[in-house]
Amino acid sequence: MQRFSTAILVFDGVEVLDFAGPFEVFSRTRLTPGTASRRTEDTAPFNVFTVAPRAGMVTATGNLRVEPQFTLETCPPVDLLVVPGGFGTRVLVEDRAVLDWIVRVSQKATLTTSVCTGAALLARAGLLAGKKATTHWASYGWMASLDASIQVVEGVRYVEDTVITSAGVQAGMDIALAVVARLCGIGVARETAQYIEYRWEPQDQPA
Amino acid sequence: MQRFSTAILVFDGVEVLDFAGPFEVFSRTRLTPGTASRRTEDTAPFNVFTVAPRAGMVTATGNLRVEPQFTLETCPPVDLLVVPGGFGTRVLVEDRAVLDWIVRVSQKATLTTSVCTGAALLARAGLLAGKKATTHWASYGWMASLDASIQVVEGVRYVEDTVITSAGVQAGMDIALAVVARLCGIGVARETAQYIEYRWEPQDQPA
Repeated sequence: MQRFSTAILVFDGVEVLDFAGPFEVFSRTRLTPGTASRRTEDTAPFNVFTVAPRAGMVTATGNLRVEPQFTLETCPPVDLLVVPGGFGTRVLVEDRAVLDWIVRVSQKATLTTSVCTGAALLARAGLLAGKKATTHWASYGWMASLDASIQVVEGVRYVEDTVITSAGVQAGMDIALAVVARLCGIGVARETAQYIEYRWEPQDQPA
Repeated sequence: MQRFSTAILVFDGVEVLDFAGPFEVFSRTRLTPGTASRRTEDTAPFNVFTVAPRAGMVTATGNLRVEPQFTLETCPPVDLLVVPGGFGTRVLVEDRAVLDWIVRVSQKATLTTSVCTGAALLARAGLLAGKKATTHWASYGWMASLDASIQVVEGVRYVEDTVITSAGVQAGMDIALAVVARLCGIGVARETAQYIEYRWEPQDQPA
């Protein structure tokens, strides 16, 4: 079975739910419904892993400490890239190695996504030039200031314009489920939402 | 300011969102609204930390690796206990040291809560005897088998009967917000939900 290589960027100051929400959705998705299928990877369509700017532990908001599986250098080829947000993005928008890595990975990936202020990193990397995009409601202005050509869309859960950008924190789970729907079918996405008891609003589901 | 000492149990095979959802809610709650207050702990009513059965890294579902801040032995006094679920609970229900710790901590804590199959640990520890409780929809029977005196409540997001037990995975965020509402007021809970863009359903909010 083809498995989508799914890289979730983690860094000091990453918002916990920004990365843990999509991690939960992608890592618990199964093509076979029910609970037994979740005990193995046999029907898991996503191979999910964390990637950090450099080796060593990462400290997320609230001091949750996470050990990343890969660094930018050791990361395997990526089909699906998730760039979370959090206050740590204020530093990372000046980190050329991270921005260059995002550009390189997104050029080969099937899909590039951001959660919350992860959109600022995509903006700074030039990936949102001339595109529609969204971010956390408190950061519309900041994202726009990084690239004046971005068409900022306010008051939505996510926007798809080549790349997929989501609103704040929890909205990352909506794009994760939307991606599951696109790559595996709406039935698999709905069953995964049911498994994790996520109330996926109909208006956030792909048409 | 009084801060509620909030312990979240983590263990091998813990479901990621079971612990990360409440961690996000409690660690991002602020008594002062807005984004600036989230940059410091000055108005943070909860001091949130992770506790593991023993020293060393914990591997959550999907191979997310987390470094716990405390062990059962080093854990400071606890006001609020969160017991998450996941397949790892199938092992932990036989771990006497963990069950005894849960009993000891809950006797002194203001509130004891479980997410998903964390309820099985509370059941096995004897904390749900004769009480109403819920868990993940696939584990109603398992929880009942651990203590026949439990009144299993099906099809709800959470149940409060001295201890608070939630349905699966995502429902842990509903109890976290309900606890914030109880301890800090409904306004603080609603503002926190808005900050993390969590659509907190009115029917899940405390009356």
